[in-house]
Amino acid sequence: MQKARIGVTGLAVMGRNLARNLARHGHPVAVHNRTSARTKALVEEFGGEGTFLPAETPERFVESLERPRRLVVMVKAGGPTDAVIDEFAPLLEPGDMIVDGGNANFADTRRREADLRERGIHFVGTGISGGEEGALHGPSIMPGGSAESYEALGPLLEDISAKVDGTPCCVHVGPDGAGHFVKMVHNGIEYADMQLIAESYDLLRHAAGLAPAEIAEVFRTWNTGRLESYLIEITAEVLAHTDASTGRPFVDVVLDQAEQKGTGRWTVQTALDLGVPVGGIAEAVFARSVSGHAALREAARGLPGPSRTAVADSGFADAVEKALYASKIVAYAQGFHEIQAGSAEYGWNIDLGAMATIWRGGCIIRARFLDRIRAAYEADPETPTLLTDDHFAEAVGDAQDAWREVVATAARLGVPAPGFSTALAYYDSLRADRLPAALTQGQRDFFGAHTYRRTDRDGSFHTLWGGDRTEVGA
Amino acid sequence: MQKARIGVTGLAVMGRNLARNLARHGHPVAVHNRTSARTKALVEEFGGEGTFLPAETPERFVESLERPRRLVVMVKAGGPTDAVIDEFAPLLEPGDMIVDGGNANFADTRRREADLRERGIHFVGTGISGGEEGALHGPSIMPGGSAESYEALGPLLEDISAKVDGTPCCVHVGPDGAGHFVKMVHNGIEYADMQLIAESYDLLRHAAGLAPAEIAEVFRTWNTGRLESYLIEITAEVLAHTDASTGRPFVDVVLDQAEQKGTGRWTVQTALDLGVPVGGIAEAVFARSVSGHAALREAARGLPGPSRTAVADSGFADAVEKALYASKIVAYAQGFHEIQAGSAEYGWNIDLGAMATIWRGGCIIRARFLDRIRAAYEADPETPTLLTDDHFAEAVGDAQDAWREVVATAARLGVPAPGFSTALAYYDSLRADRLPAALTQGQRDFFGAHTYRRTDRDGSFHTLWGGDRTEVGA
Repeated sequence: MQKARIGVTGLAVMGRNLARNLARHGHPVAVHNRTSARTKALVEEFGGEGTFLPAETPERFVESLERPRRLVVMVKAGGPTDAVIDEFAPLLEPGDMIVDGGNANFADTRRREADLRERGIHFVGTGISGGEEGALHGPSIMPGGSAESYEALGPLLEDISAKVDGTPCCVHVGPDGAGHFVKMVHNGIEYADMQLIAESYDLLRHAAGLAPAEIAEVFRTWNTGRLESYLIEITAEVLAHTDASTGRPFVDVVLDQAEQKGTGRWTVQTALDLGVPVGGIAEAVFARSVSGHAALREAARGLPGPSRTAVADSGFADAVEKALYASKIVAYAQGFHEIQAGSAEYGWNIDLGAMATIWRGGCIIRARFLDRIRAAYEADPETPTLLTDDHFAEAVGDAQDAWREVVATAARLGVPAPGFSTALAYYDSLRADRLPAALTQGQRDFFGAHTYRRTDRDGSFHTLWGGDRTEVGA
Repeated sequence: MQKARIGVTGLAVMGRNLARNLARHGHPVAVHNRTSARTKALVEEFGGEGTFLPAETPERFVESLERPRRLVVMVKAGGPTDAVIDEFAPLLEPGDMIVDGGNANFADTRRREADLRERGIHFVGTGISGGEEGALHGPSIMPGGSAESYEALGPLLEDISAKVDGTPCCVHVGPDGAGHFVKMVHNGIEYADMQLIAESYDLLRHAAGLAPAEIAEVFRTWNTGRLESYLIEITAEVLAHTDASTGRPFVDVVLDQAEQKGTGRWTVQTALDLGVPVGGIAEAVFARSVSGHAALREAARGLPGPSRTAVADSGFADAVEKALYASKIVAYAQGFHEIQAGSAEYGWNIDLGAMATIWRGGCIIRARFLDRIRAAYEADPETPTLLTDDHFAEAVGDAQDAWREVVATAARLGVPAPGFSTALAYYDSLRADRLPAALTQGQRDFFGAHTYRRTDRDGSFHTLWGGDRTEVGA
């Protein structure tokens, strides 16, 4: 009986496309789904694309895999993942691998990896980005888990991943939850990137007075320059699209309430645990959340403010491009800082440049820009921030007059630009000689005796605020 | 043998001062500490203030309490609290009460309350704000737990709480974790408030070119107006203080790296779980975190930017006052939104106006302003946001030109003002007719088939972006 090199259980669109991708690359792939109708449909519809070995039961599915077994789970994150693990793990043998390709929380992945490791099974939490199309034609793949499991899995995953300049968009990220952690931050960066694009659009619309079709042209032009990326490309597509039923710009008939799943929120919550400032991602999550509070917005709609009058200026679109590029650099710098901090916290030893490398293709944030980040980490793997890289520092330096003017214009016209603003404030905070945090520490010492340190000598100190205000060592 | 009306275990400064406050109000109080030296010291030093019943062992401590027993735990949040509960709960009887006065996470409080409820013991997670001085002279007290426990505890707690216009700064917040939840948000708001003050100071220093002593005067003046509050008052004190050893302004010798404990972070993480945008609190937490990243700041210090040159203008301090007041309204509106959402999520039925009422005195954020919030909720207990209250809407309306100018000036001069900026962006987002979230939803539908809703009819829709771009129902 022919054995499959790898198996996929969970044949919703992501799982199905991943299985097809494997089969198309010549890898015999076992396929299984809780309800077998999906398994049959896959083989009927796409059986000609390669070798599929359908299995109706978990037992048959596991039997059909060559050893060590590679079992890819493509089900909903959370409870369903645990249920599938509970079902399959007893059927496996030491050395076998369970690959979780869902958007799991990295803490769950750490727990599952530890549990299964005790039973001799490799658990490989794997970020997969690129949506349905990516899964089929080549996603960006971020596998965690043991180095040993990567030896057995890596060649297969690299084979089906996207390629940029011949380099696969797949690399071993690090132990246990590292892969899902990096995928989480990838998604957080995606939120920030989309928010900055949304603000750019809003400003071009309401400050420069352009129509959606005109703005689509602006984005198309941007997509030929340093902002070239999948997100900019599809922004132009969405903005250029006309709604068939009304003849109006598509973007004007879509309800302006953005939805979200969990990963953006997790990225911010995790950053808070790690003490990493990620204002760009947080503001993006909050902006979606504000947009969805319909009753709140309805109540506040009449509040006074400027009437977003167009101040059209031929140079404004260029200024927005600069603000977008500078803010994007900040958002990515914050995201990479979070990966750096997570890697240190959990001992993952993540190669930051390699992350930029595998995000260059296949995933939603793929962009020319990421090759610059790869180069920045190649030049200095230990840099505390991308902002000090020569290229990025120069780009921000060149962009900043325009950036400041765009933030000021947004404030004055009443066009919300929380992403641009927080990025600029972060940049100005980092480069400041002194921050007003000294006052904050003074206040904390005043009301809570929390003590402070001094600029001129070591130690912790407390001022007797309620007494004669002498200073005492703490 | 005389019995105590209430007992306090854990006699570090907060517990000691709370016990003294109880004794001073004529309540015989049992006192206990893991190491009995502290118990002895308390009685020796402050025994004359009232009736203290020292106990060396948990058993004697519990025996000395009248029934139902009221046992206040004042130990470090987390593991130590669980350890004390494990030690004392077996000694208690049904109907007895354990009051946790620490800064516990409300989720822990919910767990502990449920555990102890099964054993017939009331667990009363209680927020206590006001620091050491508040604990001694009258704090703001936020008890959760059962209504039955409040009947036995409330009169005592109200007795020792701060009073404003004769009203105690203590009220039953709601069941189980409600008290600690509200205390958490109180602290989050405190972070935001302090950050806005820090930005005001920074702008007066670097945009208006004032010296710390001059800025102290500005704050003193503000403290006679609508901004009158404890935090503004102590800001003036801190800024006016001269460092004895150098003769320099105190604020200039304090290391500008702000520290934080957990509650600000928790407030943001919880808000993210609840889907409530709290940009003002998040930016405050991030600003402290940025300030503490010494290596990052050191690396970025040379980055290009404006040289924060003073643009002194006699009206600028007034403009900053307006920006501060408007931003503060937003930060509080966000915090109260979080309480409203938490109350709905956990079925706590929290009276928002009552929270404003008990924060008017005793706690760190006590302010004239809170009486305005009380009045706003009295006028409309169901209002989705404080921003639509007549007083606040008018105040923001009057302030906004100045607010916008301050944000624009900060951006142009390179003085970071993330708190002012995020507050303004929130305000402009809420009042916007349309948000660019429509573009975000269009992008999400493009790359992930996440669907969108329409402005003109119900249902969810998907555009076949990869095909002929017709729209299909989802």
